[in-house]
Amino acid sequence: MTTTKSGSGTRASAAPIPGDGRCRVVIENVWPEVNHGRYPAKRAAGETLTVAADIFADGHDSLAALLLYRRETDREWSEVPMLSRGNDRWRAGFPAAEVGRYCYTIVAWVDHFRSWCHDLKRRPDDDPDLKMVFLAGAGLVTRAAANTSGRDAERLAAIARALDGDAGVTEKRRAALNEETAELMNRHAERRFAARYDKELIVTVDRERARFGAWYEFFPRSCNGERHGGFRDCEARLRYVAAMGFDVVYLPPIHPIGRSYRKGSNNTLNAGPADVGSPWAIGAKEGGHKAVHPELGTLEDFRWFVARAGELGLEVALDIAYQCSPDHPYVKQHPEWFRRRPDGSVQYAENPPKKYQDIYPFDFECESWQELWHELKSIVDFWIEQGVRIFRVDNPHTKPFAFWEWLIGDVRRAHPDVLFLSEAFTRPRIMHRLSKLGFTHSYTYFTWRNTKQELTEYFTELTRAEGREYFRPHVWPNTPDILNEYLQFGGRPAFMVRLVLAATLAANYGIYGPAFELGETRPREPGSEEYLDSEKYQLRRWDLERPDSLRDFIARVNHIRRENPALQYDWNLQFHAVDNDKLICYSKASEDRNDVVLVVVNLDPHHRQSGWVELPLDALGVHGAQPYQMHDLLTDARFLWNGTRNYVELDPHTAPAHVFRLRRRVRTEQDFDYYM
Amino acid sequence: MTTTKSGSGTRASAAPIPGDGRCRVVIENVWPEVNHGRYPAKRAAGETLTVAADIFADGHDSLAALLLYRRETDREWSEVPMLSRGNDRWRAGFPAAEVGRYCYTIVAWVDHFRSWCHDLKRRPDDDPDLKMVFLAGAGLVTRAAANTSGRDAERLAAIARALDGDAGVTEKRRAALNEETAELMNRHAERRFAARYDKELIVTVDRERARFGAWYEFFPRSCNGERHGGFRDCEARLRYVAAMGFDVVYLPPIHPIGRSYRKGSNNTLNAGPADVGSPWAIGAKEGGHKAVHPELGTLEDFRWFVARAGELGLEVALDIAYQCSPDHPYVKQHPEWFRRRPDGSVQYAENPPKKYQDIYPFDFECESWQELWHELKSIVDFWIEQGVRIFRVDNPHTKPFAFWEWLIGDVRRAHPDVLFLSEAFTRPRIMHRLSKLGFTHSYTYFTWRNTKQELTEYFTELTRAEGREYFRPHVWPNTPDILNEYLQFGGRPAFMVRLVLAATLAANYGIYGPAFELGETRPREPGSEEYLDSEKYQLRRWDLERPDSLRDFIARVNHIRRENPALQYDWNLQFHAVDNDKLICYSKASEDRNDVVLVVVNLDPHHRQSGWVELPLDALGVHGAQPYQMHDLLTDARFLWNGTRNYVELDPHTAPAHVFRLRRRVRTEQDFDYYM
Repeated sequence: MTTTKSGSGTRASAAPIPGDGRCRVVIENVWPEVNHGRYPAKRAAGETLTVAADIFADGHDSLAALLLYRRETDREWSEVPMLSRGNDRWRAGFPAAEVGRYCYTIVAWVDHFRSWCHDLKRRPDDDPDLKMVFLAGAGLVTRAAANTSGRDAERLAAIARALDGDAGVTEKRRAALNEETAELMNRHAERRFAARYDKELIVTVDRERARFGAWYEFFPRSCNGERHGGFRDCEARLRYVAAMGFDVVYLPPIHPIGRSYRKGSNNTLNAGPADVGSPWAIGAKEGGHKAVHPELGTLEDFRWFVARAGELGLEVALDIAYQCSPDHPYVKQHPEWFRRRPDGSVQYAENPPKKYQDIYPFDFECESWQELWHELKSIVDFWIEQGVRIFRVDNPHTKPFAFWEWLIGDVRRAHPDVLFLSEAFTRPRIMHRLSKLGFTHSYTYFTWRNTKQELTEYFTELTRAEGREYFRPHVWPNTPDILNEYLQFGGRPAFMVRLVLAATLAANYGIYGPAFELGETRPREPGSEEYLDSEKYQLRRWDLERPDSLRDFIARVNHIRRENPALQYDWNLQFHAVDNDKLICYSKASEDRNDVVLVVVNLDPHHRQSGWVELPLDALGVHGAQPYQMHDLLTDARFLWNGTRNYVELDPHTAPAHVFRLRRRVRTEQDFDYYM
Repeated sequence: MTTTKSGSGTRASAAPIPGDGRCRVVIENVWPEVNHGRYPAKRAAGETLTVAADIFADGHDSLAALLLYRRETDREWSEVPMLSRGNDRWRAGFPAAEVGRYCYTIVAWVDHFRSWCHDLKRRPDDDPDLKMVFLAGAGLVTRAAANTSGRDAERLAAIARALDGDAGVTEKRRAALNEETAELMNRHAERRFAARYDKELIVTVDRERARFGAWYEFFPRSCNGERHGGFRDCEARLRYVAAMGFDVVYLPPIHPIGRSYRKGSNNTLNAGPADVGSPWAIGAKEGGHKAVHPELGTLEDFRWFVARAGELGLEVALDIAYQCSPDHPYVKQHPEWFRRRPDGSVQYAENPPKKYQDIYPFDFECESWQELWHELKSIVDFWIEQGVRIFRVDNPHTKPFAFWEWLIGDVRRAHPDVLFLSEAFTRPRIMHRLSKLGFTHSYTYFTWRNTKQELTEYFTELTRAEGREYFRPHVWPNTPDILNEYLQFGGRPAFMVRLVLAATLAANYGIYGPAFELGETRPREPGSEEYLDSEKYQLRRWDLERPDSLRDFIARVNHIRRENPALQYDWNLQFHAVDNDKLICYSKASEDRNDVVLVVVNLDPHHRQSGWVELPLDALGVHGAQPYQMHDLLTDARFLWNGTRNYVELDPHTAPAHVFRLRRRVRTEQDFDYYM
């Protein structure tokens, strides 16, 4: 026998034992947790943050776990008990009630009383050890009583006496295994060797507009027939946009436009004196990013525009494009912010063989980068002072990530209601990074996803994969830069299809109008996705009253979005099988399933298509045996459906889509059916 | 114009800018990285550690990245250039050459010269800016020259002159875009604003035996007919095991066995005086975990056993079971290490309604837990001193994780060649945790995976999912505790099937013999997985010479494992389609594809089954048009196969499996085909 008392020979060489080895509980794989907690998750006010974690210990003891949360500015934590969902996965949620930032973390411990109850339940009444078991339980309860006072202490003492005394087994079991005892012990039993998750995670809570919204982009300068329009000419246009049911009007840059190397219509070099130039060539002798283009009006006119839009229920989103025309005052005032060519001239933007002599990018690697950052942020602050609360950021992926993280973080610390939409049409990692570091929304690849398989895969990723915690999709069927081939060749039905898809697949969507509702299909040249006679380079006169305009159709779709809460969320999207690849079918249901919207779209803009839709009735809250009514909110037609398989047929030239609201039968009385 | 010089009004309130905002490169999603780097990945000596990461920056610049690695005890880093594999994923590998621990991390930076080359390639010869471009390039090269001296500096200066001078465009392009220039610039161009990954990750490199091995478990006390056997009686048994081609013999605990509450045969209470007891009821008056059971022999006899096994090419694995019989000396010497019942008696193990009065667990929550830990570790150290280098740990999941992490870490710091096999038949999270914190191998659910779907899913998880970085499977068709129903009812073919599956699906496997090779099928009672007359509680006399013994079959399978390197790895497993769910087909190929083993098993132990196997010829290195030979290493039969689909037929009563080695035709000469 070589066993030694503690301090045997080998001990001297042993590594020190770190921490208290009696903390036996592991908390890991916490979700949401973006990049190991480096970035916050996102929610909109009113949503619940559900937190899940793997929580387990060695052995067979029962555990208890709490989700702790607080507003970042508070000191006190609130607690929510976590529940085990099997396979060591635990879950709890808390309400992300207010705009701002919340912290959350987890504590868990081995719950000896809960283990004892579990053990007791499995013992038969004739177990010879029962007396000992009840004594052990009495000991646990007595120790809990000592941790408190008043009524709780009295109640616990009484329970301990019941377990300790001469009562029968049934009575003792009753004293031990009831809800009051469980609750009292939960509250007062010692949490010995509790483990605390080693990070405090953050969730950013945005205002509700972050969660859903319909955007309309237009060029104010085209609002006055052939003349250069200004903000004050936009009264009718704002009414028109509001009547279509949009929530946000987004304006391309409103600043003075450079004259050097100004582009003519259709992006030609050497513009004539009448050419208005691209609004993204920012800066002229009249000013830079904090000035208003003189022909659009004054700063006061802009403030009028914002106010007038607000009266009509429209918010104004402004474009932030951090680049300069050669005439921008920065070029002279801060030559150090630009890269030089060997001949001393400023390096303009290039993507060989393309040259953009009208655009000077900032040099973010310059020595005075900190001054540059502060100045760029002051631009956002300036427009916030003018009443703007939404910014659509042009090409954020060509500026450093650290810059955006600092800028957005700093702006939102003072103004947590400010939203930023990232216009980064680039590689997935980069788009995700921008969303992680603070952008509220991001443009997506929706514009190029047209087939059923593409749409299903992409929206499954957007609404199911881990990125959904921080990446809020914003989908656009068209933009001033992108006229997809599907629209070029699909005619009016293609526009209706893409509108319905955008507005019902995603809670946030936008269109560039009036090019969209007027069905503009002409590309600058075959194979190009750019518009012919693009408004980026010239004024356009739009006939808004054209009878083939989609304005009424869009108004109806936006009205449906407003009436149906199910369409105001992204994650509730479910795709359903249809036995025809030209037909796509999906549904969205509100959490209480009172609002279920089912959409079927014919993706073929040329031919009538039909097929059988297959629905999971349970998930939609329909009892298999009962018929149910599908009420097409686009046409007001009603169809009586039955069972899991039902027939649909869609003619693109009359109605390329159904947007059904499901109405379940609530009561039958002789000949009358009632649907709600 | 409201632009201000730096230091505008809003700046005072702005948050300070953290770090150097010009570090633009992001390094994230590094793999392998276990639990955010909290635990090491695992490799065996001689393997390569391939490291992947998402590496990207804003904008369109080219990047460069290096994988840095070093032995943990070294100070100098070695560098390997990482290569982009598309979609911002980069990769490089380094040789995990020696047993021990290696650190690795990543640095990356914007490579302005590489960007410049990329830009240059896309410019046409008539680009008016070319002169400027070459000048800019000359500037980059000149700066690199200033960073070095000697021949490299001269070469760089010459290149700069070539770019700067009057040479033609073609010559200048040639000077810029060649391998020597790229290499010189790689070496000397400044790595401005390089990003370094914020963690140094660890990989544990085990000796080769960790990667593959065939284990044989047996009870030495049953090696001497009806009498209690000892180590010195095992000579013949060791020869027998070695002849079957095993690598490791694993012994149940070899310590004195308690007499109090000793279990009789078939786990009955109240053993008689002749009952030998369970080896897992450790400790008696003769000693505890550092003593040898007197009837097995002395410590010297054990050392002889280890040496004799070594001469036969067998390593000895010892069982570590941290629990005590009531007679263990610890119980008197260290009463503080055990939990007490209210009557002062020691709490024995219970799993209501089951009671294990013969087992006292340690109380890891006791006050003197640190002394307990040190004493338990001293047991391992003791057996290491006796020459043991492999431990099979009994029920590690009922002791704290922190304990194992400390113990294994501390043991392996002194003895990096020591291996630990975790016998944790429990929930997945717990099994994974034990593997993360240091166990070399883990028992698996293989024992209960019998159908094609179960096996395919489980081994796909084991060899493809992230857990493979730290969880090394060790698969056992049977153990003294587990006689699966498949073996109970499938007869001899079932044993052959399970052996082939274990030995070819996994690089590490083991059997409990002679119960296995003698086809022991009787459970203690119907529905039980425990053996009737289990060796855990009594001696057994095994007739090793029985003609139906599988010893020759096992010897052949183990020989095939030794001859075919493809079978000595786990991750190279590929499943292939067969149009019959009773047939499973998979292959393993060595990295150079010189060794390709294809296995087809008939999972139905009762009926002949046939089907068509579908193979990906390219992946197996076969040219589609040529026939190829399948050489069955079990039967020496040879089949000429052709194309992707081939027919197989397996009769469980003759041969329930093919273990083919693929032999490709290397040359045809009139009537002769040559296969290798």
